[in-house]
Amino acid sequence: MGAPYATPDDLREALVEGGTIFQTAVDGVYHRSWDWERVLRGVEGHVMAQAVVEGAPRRWFPPIMPREEFLKTDYVRSFPDLVGSIDVFTGGDKEHRALLAVLEDGGDWTAHLTPAEVVLPSSVCHPLYGNLPTDVPADGLDEECSGWSFRHEPSLDPARMQIFRIYEYVKVGTPEQSLAHRDEWLERGLAALQQLGLPVRSEAANDPFFGRVGKMLAVNQLDSQLKYEMVVDLTDVKPTAIGSSNYHEDHFGETFGLHLADGSPAHSACIGFGLDRIALALFATHGTDVDAWPAEVKAHLALA
Amino acid sequence: MGAPYATPDDLREALVEGGTIFQTAVDGVYHRSWDWERVLRGVEGHVMAQAVVEGAPRRWFPPIMPREEFLKTDYVRSFPDLVGSIDVFTGGDKEHRALLAVLEDGGDWTAHLTPAEVVLPSSVCHPLYGNLPTDVPADGLDEECSGWSFRHEPSLDPARMQIFRIYEYVKVGTPEQSLAHRDEWLERGLAALQQLGLPVRSEAANDPFFGRVGKMLAVNQLDSQLKYEMVVDLTDVKPTAIGSSNYHEDHFGETFGLHLADGSPAHSACIGFGLDRIALALFATHGTDVDAWPAEVKAHLALA
Repeated sequence: MGAPYATPDDLREALVEGGTIFQTAVDGVYHRSWDWERVLRGVEGHVMAQAVVEGAPRRWFPPIMPREEFLKTDYVRSFPDLVGSIDVFTGGDKEHRALLAVLEDGGDWTAHLTPAEVVLPSSVCHPLYGNLPTDVPADGLDEECSGWSFRHEPSLDPARMQIFRIYEYVKVGTPEQSLAHRDEWLERGLAALQQLGLPVRSEAANDPFFGRVGKMLAVNQLDSQLKYEMVVDLTDVKPTAIGSSNYHEDHFGETFGLHLADGSPAHSACIGFGLDRIALALFATHGTDVDAWPAEVKAHLALA
Repeated sequence: MGAPYATPDDLREALVEGGTIFQTAVDGVYHRSWDWERVLRGVEGHVMAQAVVEGAPRRWFPPIMPREEFLKTDYVRSFPDLVGSIDVFTGGDKEHRALLAVLEDGGDWTAHLTPAEVVLPSSVCHPLYGNLPTDVPADGLDEECSGWSFRHEPSLDPARMQIFRIYEYVKVGTPEQSLAHRDEWLERGLAALQQLGLPVRSEAANDPFFGRVGKMLAVNQLDSQLKYEMVVDLTDVKPTAIGSSNYHEDHFGETFGLHLADGSPAHSACIGFGLDRIALALFATHGTDVDAWPAEVKAHLALA
C-alpha cells in the first residue's frame, strides 16, 4: 500500500485547503483548527487509556521550564541547534529608551535583554526529573506527563512543527525495569496506534545529535538499540515517526541525582506519543473530514 | 460574603496540598494535574458554547508566534518588562565549542545565541491580526482564538502564572461594531461565569503599561473606559481578574494594515476568558475535590 501523499508539500497543502491547519509567516508555525484540537485531545485520551499502573502521577507541563533544570539535561551539549532560550527585559525607563532607539533603527534590540530563569523545553520529560523524589523506591517510579516541545528546525514539512505536544509514560528505576518499560510500551504503543487505523511499525532509531562528535553519539545510540521509533508512511519521501520508546541508561539519574537503594544512579526510560504527529497521521490517513472517519477510529478517539 | 481564602499563599498551599497544581523551582511556573486540565477544557467548552456568530473561524495558536508580527503589536514599547524573546543557536562545531566553554565556566552562554524568527505571544490575539484579510467587510470580521500568553512577572500568587491560556472572541470592524462587541460580550461573559457559580462583577481597568510614560497611558485607558475586567474575590487581598473586554480603537487596524471600505484603519475589540484563571477561581470557590462540585457547575463544564 502506498503512502497517502507523494510529498510533504502535498500533505501540507491538503491540510491547509481542508481548513485543518493554518500556515503562518514562519515555517513550521501553524495555527490549529478545532478539528485538529479535538482529534488531538481524543488521541491523548486514547493514549491515557493505555495506562497500566493505576494511580501513577500525571502532570501537564506549561510550555516553559526552569533554566537550571534544562541545563542538567545536557541538551545544550548534544542538540544546541534545537534549543530555545528565553530573554526578558529587566531594566528601567532609561534602559527602555535605549532599547527602543535600537529597535527604531532596525538594530538588535534583544541585546538589551537578559536570560530569563525559564527556557522552552526540548522534550516533554525534561521538566519532570527535577521534581521527583531522589530516593527511587524498589518498584521504581512510574510517571505520566504531557506538554509542549520546542525544537528549532524551521521546515515546510507539516511533520516538522517548531513546537508540538507529546504524552509520555516515564519509568525511573533499575536498568531491567527501564528496559522492560521501553520494550513493553513499544508493543503497547504500536497496538494502540494500530487501533486508530494507522499502519505503524517500529524501527531502531537515533536522535539528531549535533556536529562531528554528535555523529559518533548517534551511531552509538543506534548500535546500542537505545531508541525505537513508531513510524508510519504519510508521504513517499520518508517514514514519519509518531512516537518513540527510549532507554536513557543512567543519564537523567546521574545528572538529577536520582538514586537506587544501593546508592547508584537510577536508570530511566520513556515512551513518547507525539500527539501532534499522530493527529497529522490521522488526517493524512483518514482525510480532512473527521465526521467521515471510520466509526471504530472515532470511537477510540471519543469523537461523537 | 468573604473571599474563600485570606491570602494568595493560602490559596496556593491549598491547591498544592490538594494535588491540583505542582510547584516548581521557578515562581509562577506550575505543573497542572489532570483535574486542572479537565476543568480547564470544560471551561473552554463552556466559553465556546457562548458563541453567537455561527461559523466564525476558530484558531488554536501554538505557544510561539512570528517575531515580526509581535513587533507590530507595539508590546515592546508598552510592556517591555513582560516580553519573552526566544534565542537559538545557529553556529557550527567551532561556535558550539566556544559556547560550551563559556557554559562550563559558568558564564553567559546565551551570548552565543541569536534571536529566533519567533517569540512568545504576550496576548492571545496577537498572532491573529497578521493572518486576517486586510480588506475588512461591512459586517466586520468575527474570529475566535485560543492559546498561551507569556508574561514575565514571577510571583508566588497562583493567579499570576508566567504562562497561561486565554480564549478570545475578537471583532474587527467599525468603531461602533467594536464597542458593541466589547459591551455585549462583557454582559455575556459575566452571565456565563455566573453559571459556573462564580460571584463575578465587572470593573473598569487598565493594562500595566511600563514606566513613566506608561503611567499616563494607563490613566488615559482608564479614563477612556477602553477596558473592563471580570473580577472575583478569591482572597481578601485583592480581586482577581478572570477575563477582560477590551476596545483597541484603531491600534491593530493601523499597525497590521486592516482597512474599512473607506480606506480608514479598522477598529477592534476582544473579550478574553482567562482559562487558567477561571480554573483557579473554580477550585478556589468549589474546592479541590471536583467530584463534589455542584451538579449544575459540573454540567456546564461537561464533567461527568
